[in-house]
Amino acid sequence: MTTPTPSPRPRGTLYLVPAPLDFGCSEQAPLTDVLPAGTLQQAAQLQHWIVENAKTARAYLKRIEEHVPLCQPLQAMQMVELPREVHKVGDHAGQKTSATKGAKNATPKRTDPPAFDPRSLLRPALDGHDMGLVSEAGMPGVADPGSSIVRAAHQLGLRVVPLTGPISLLLALAASGLNGQSFAFIGYLPQDDSARANALRMYEAHARKTGQAQIAIETPYRNAKLWQACLQHLQADTWLSVHSGISLPTARSQSMSVKSWRKQGEECPMDGKTPAVFIFGC
Amino acid sequence: MTTPTPSPRPRGTLYLVPAPLDFGCSEQAPLTDVLPAGTLQQAAQLQHWIVENAKTARAYLKRIEEHVPLCQPLQAMQMVELPREVHKVGDHAGQKTSATKGAKNATPKRTDPPAFDPRSLLRPALDGHDMGLVSEAGMPGVADPGSSIVRAAHQLGLRVVPLTGPISLLLALAASGLNGQSFAFIGYLPQDDSARANALRMYEAHARKTGQAQIAIETPYRNAKLWQACLQHLQADTWLSVHSGISLPTARSQSMSVKSWRKQGEECPMDGKTPAVFIFGC
Repeated sequence: MTTPTPSPRPRGTLYLVPAPLDFGCSEQAPLTDVLPAGTLQQAAQLQHWIVENAKTARAYLKRIEEHVPLCQPLQAMQMVELPREVHKVGDHAGQKTSATKGAKNATPKRTDPPAFDPRSLLRPALDGHDMGLVSEAGMPGVADPGSSIVRAAHQLGLRVVPLTGPISLLLALAASGLNGQSFAFIGYLPQDDSARANALRMYEAHARKTGQAQIAIETPYRNAKLWQACLQHLQADTWLSVHSGISLPTARSQSMSVKSWRKQGEECPMDGKTPAVFIFGC
Repeated sequence: MTTPTPSPRPRGTLYLVPAPLDFGCSEQAPLTDVLPAGTLQQAAQLQHWIVENAKTARAYLKRIEEHVPLCQPLQAMQMVELPREVHKVGDHAGQKTSATKGAKNATPKRTDPPAFDPRSLLRPALDGHDMGLVSEAGMPGVADPGSSIVRAAHQLGLRVVPLTGPISLLLALAASGLNGQSFAFIGYLPQDDSARANALRMYEAHARKTGQAQIAIETPYRNAKLWQACLQHLQADTWLSVHSGISLPTARSQSMSVKSWRKQGEECPMDGKTPAVFIFGC
C-alpha cells in the first residue's frame, strides 16, 4: 500500500476590504448605504486580517456583525497591524511623488530597501487561509496604506480581489463635473504657504494645458488653509470643486469657477473635522 | 383675504447612479455583490432619468426591481438619452487630453461652444423632481459620459449626490500594488503603432521620474494589441498590472515587472471581449 502524495495546499486569496468613510466623523452612515451585501458577506467570512489599526478594524467588524454573522467571535480573529512606518510615510515612501516634492526634480529612490518585509504578514495566505486587508477608512492602497502588501501578494502568486465600497476620490470626481476622462491624484500639497502656492500654480498650469483634472486632499484641520490658497492663487476661470464628507448623509459637493467662489465671499464651505476632497481644472 | 405668496418650489437632487460593469460580458455578477442596498433603494425611487442608453438603462432598472420595488412601472419612467455627440467624444471634447493628443502641445479649446445644452435635460430637477444620471457601465462622469450634465447641475445650483458602486479604475489600482498615493488616468492610448509606442514611453518616463502610477483603458478587442505594446516598449523593471472583468466573478488581477511578464511568454492574459484596465509604474 502506498501513501498518496499530498497535493499542494491551495493558497488563500487576499481580499481588499473597503471601510466606510465616517470614522471619526460626527455622523455615521448606515453600513448598507455604502457597502454591498457581497462585500459585507465576504468580509464576515475572513478570519485573518492585516489592518492599519486593530482598534478601528474591530469596531468595523462589530458594525458588520449587525448585518451578517461573523465566521468566528471577534476575539478569535487573527489580526496584525501594518508597521507604523507605513502609516506615516505610505507604502511608496522611497518614491518622491510629484505631490510632495515637485514634479520636475523628483526621482524615485528605487533602490531603497523596503522598511519591512510585507511578505511575512501574508504567511496565513500561503498556508491556505483567505485574508482581508483593511485601512482606517476607504480603500486600502488608494490614498491609504496597503499597496506594499498587495504587491507582495502578487510576488507570492496570491490571488488579489478588490471588494466594492466607497472610494471618496472618484465619488468626488464624478460629482465635480470636471474631466473624468483624464485626471490625476496629486495627494497632499506642501504645508508651507509659498510652496503650496507654487504647487497650486504648477498643477493648474498642467491642468489648463492638458485638460487633466487635479485631485488633492488635505488633513481636515488644514481644509480652510488649502481653500483660501485655492481662492488666492488659482486663476479666475479655473473650476474649483470641493467635497466634504463624501458618502455620508451630510455630504456636500460644490463646483464653480474660482471667480464665482470669490464673489460668494471667502467663508470656507468645509469644517475642520470632516475629510474633504479638492478638485480643480478647466 | 390675501393669498399667501407661494414659497419657491424646492429643487430636485441629481443622483449619480453607478451601474454594474458586466453589461455585454458573458457572466453577470449578482447586483447585490457590487451595489449597496442604499444605492439600489435610492435608484428605485427615481422617476426621472438622464441615461447614456435607454435600452440598457431599462434593463438595469429591471435588475434593480428584482431586489427593490420601483416607485412606478418601468414604462412610466421619464428617460432622456444623452446626445450622441457626448457618447462619441466625451463631455470634455473641447479639451485635448494628454491621453489622446500628447501632453506637450495640447491646449484646451476652452471657448468652444457646447455641442448641446445640458441644462435643458435638467428641467425636471428645476421643477422639483429628483433625477438619476446613469451610464452604460460604471460611474457616470468617470471614464464615461455625464460630466457635462453634472457641471450644468452645479451651475443651476442643484444638489449633486454620487451613490456608491463599482468604479473599476480604482478597484484595479487598489489591486495593482502600484502607487495609490499618486496616480493619473490617461484614458485610451493612440491606436497607431508608432504613436502608441511613443505615448507609452512618454508616460513611463513620467511615471519613473515622479512615481505616479499610470492607468489606461482600451476597447476590449484591442486589449491584446496594447498588451503586446506594453511588453515591447516598457522597460524591464517597470511594473505592469493588468485587470480583466473587475468586480465580476471571473475578475483577474496580475502585477509583475515587465521582465517577469516577458519570461512568462507573450500570451495575452485578457480576452478580447471583457473590459480591462492597464496600470504601469514603478
